Amino acid sequence: RPPPAIGGTKSISHYQLNGLQSTWRSFESHERVLILTPIARFYDEYWNNLINLNYPHELIELGFILPRGREANSALLRLEEAVKRLQTGPKKNRFAKVTILRQDFDSPFSQSEKDRHALSGQKERRAAMARARNSLFTTTINAGISWILWLDADIVESPNTLVQDLAAHNKPIIVANCYQRYVDHGENKIRAYDFNSWQDSDTAAQMAKDMGDDDVIFEGYAEMATYRTLMAYQYVAGNDAHEEVQLDGVGATALLVKAEVHRDGAMFPSFPFYHLIESEGFAKMAKRLGYQSYGLPNYLVYHYNE
Amino acid sequence: RPPPAIGGTKSISHYQLNGLQSTWRSFESHERVLILTPIARFYDEYWNNLINLNYPHELIELGFILPRGREANSALLRLEEAVKRLQTGPKKNRFAKVTILRQDFDSPFSQSEKDRHALSGQKERRAAMARARNSLFTTTINAGISWILWLDADIVESPNTLVQDLAAHNKPIIVANCYQRYVDHGENKIRAYDFNSWQDSDTAAQMAKDMGDDDVIFEGYAEMATYRTLMAYQYVAGNDAHEEVQLDGVGATALLVKAEVHRDGAMFPSFPFYHLIESEGFAKMAKRLGYQSYGLPNYLVYHYNE
Ligand SMILES: Nc1nc2c(ncn2[C@@H]2O[C@H](COP(=O)(O)OP(=O)(O)O)[C@@H](O)[C@H]2O)c(=O)[nH]1
Ligand SMILES: Nc1nc2c(ncn2[C@@H]2O[C@H](COP(=O)(O)OP(=O)(O)O)[C@@H](O)[C@H]2O)c(=O)[nH]1
Ligand SMILES: [Mn+2]
Ligand SMILES: [Mn+2]
Repeated sequence: RPPPAIGGTKSISHYQLNGLQSTWRSFESHERVLILTPIARFYDEYWNNLINLNYPHELIELGFILPRGREANSALLRLEEAVKRLQTGPKKNRFAKVTILRQDFDSPFSQSEKDRHALSGQKERRAAMARARNSLFTTTINAGISWILWLDADIVESPNTLVQDLAAHNKPIIVANCYQRYVDHGENKIRAYDFNSWQDSDTAAQMAKDMGDDDVIFEGYAEMATYRTLMAYQYVAGNDAHEEVQLDGVGATALLVKAEVHRDGAMFPSFPFYHLIESEGFAKMAKRLGYQSYGLPNYLVYHYNE
Repeated sequence: RPPPAIGGTKSISHYQLNGLQSTWRSFESHERVLILTPIARFYDEYWNNLINLNYPHELIELGFILPRGREANSALLRLEEAVKRLQTGPKKNRFAKVTILRQDFDSPFSQSEKDRHALSGQKERRAAMARARNSLFTTTINAGISWILWLDADIVESPNTLVQDLAAHNKPIIVANCYQRYVDHGENKIRAYDFNSWQDSDTAAQMAKDMGDDDVIFEGYAEMATYRTLMAYQYVAGNDAHEEVQLDGVGATALLVKAEVHRDGAMFPSFPFYHLIESEGFAKMAKRLGYQSYGLPNYLVYHYNE
């Protein structure tokens, strides 16, 4: 359905927020989806998957946010070119709207995978990501949007039914399992990549209790063993891709959120919120607002491998 | 200045968030202001003050959110009529854009002043207000907005220079002092109305420490003496209207916020956040995001008196 305007001239718009649905029938009920991507590097594979999404493009709006800096400048050029080509091409492929935002602060860190993942820089790096995500969604959500799909720019493999597949679960927040391909002695293999989707543990809860107010628990670091149940390790090859698990923390590489969750105020904390920040803190804040997060351990998307 | 678009066809928009300013020269630099009002009852005085604002109307966008229910239905009718009259009237009076949202949940409480202020209902009532405010700003902020003015619908007296006066202080968050007129033995008097703007006290900090995780401190109730310094009582007749004080909690009756504060993720918590909710929790969250709140004890606006 189109946004449920209940009247209005050009400068006056009326919307019934309760007329807005986000349901498992997203596709048939013409629900509008806003796909949001913080982007520091441009990958053709990401872009191709985006334009191959078979959710009706006229129901999709795109929003991008880029950091400042030289590397991002070149990503911006490639993004602009790709957007222009698409939006001036065949009508049926065009998206309803594209917004490109440029951050008012630099990316605090180098974009190499090793540097990105050093524990020492996590707090500052993920705080910057949180601010970028908040600027992006607050600036682009409008009254017609039913769903937000957070999709990272370095997800280089994802099904063209991604939107419908995730929306079919009809959950306020649902995340795919983010893996990575690699080559081991000439053999193609896959491994877990994103460790931000997890169920809490007593150990982590105890760690949080013993921490200073501003300390943050990061997942996936041996120096900080949390014994949380990681969705990354719950994948079983061949099992039902639609099996659901409840989560207490989520990653944002491929994350579908009902718009009402963000509208109610769920954001990505850039400060320690229950000792969590960014997407993990988002899940906790959403929980405080009454929304449960879910994950699909057997539904894989793949992260770029440098 | 108009929104700093850096290119774009109809369906593609580019914005440099760092090209967006919010400065004390708001007026001369043509900064766009979004005025947001949760509204359960319509007062002509509020509307007249709004249309008498002498900040250029073509730089002002309006957003309203109404609860469900019979009383709000009648407020909606009057609001729609007023908006329509204005937006079809002389061009120079028209606002750039008007958005009216209808909440997807009822107002949990009666709108009489006595019922509204009973301590027993505060948590639920202010949580509902917080959700309404969050829906309103996330749905209406766009990339061109520099400032958000939160202005309650029952503020029946406010200067027509309200926007410039508050913006002139060039603070991330700044709040006017909300008073109320009344008659005492035939004499016209004024008294403090909004107690949500305050500086914290050791007593309140200690109370917070001794509370359960989900308990909330509300200001202005004898049952809960906080000994905070209330801006409401710092007004001195005849003193400089532009005298500033730092605040730890703010009310939202007439509150100017730089758009970047909301973009960074500062929202109105509907759950206890450091034992605070709604506008008081907003000031605390903004502080965690690095933004200090201020108030103007001698700059008065007046609340309706039933
Ligand atoms: N806007 C913005 N995007 C960024 C920044 N740093 C990384 N990104 C993008 O944000 C997403 C997640 O960041 P990434 O570094 O890949 O996180 P990781 O895969 O968990 O190490 C990717 O799409 C990046 O391209 C930044 O500083 N600003
Ligand atoms: N959208 C919405 N607005 C409300 C609701 N309740 C009150 N309001 C409006 O929100 C503002 C603040 O609420 P009010 O009851 O006046 O708070 P008080 O003056 O602190 O008691 C006013 O503009 C009201 O008209 C509600 O449930 N939903
Ligand atoms: Mn990544
Ligand atoms: Mn009021």
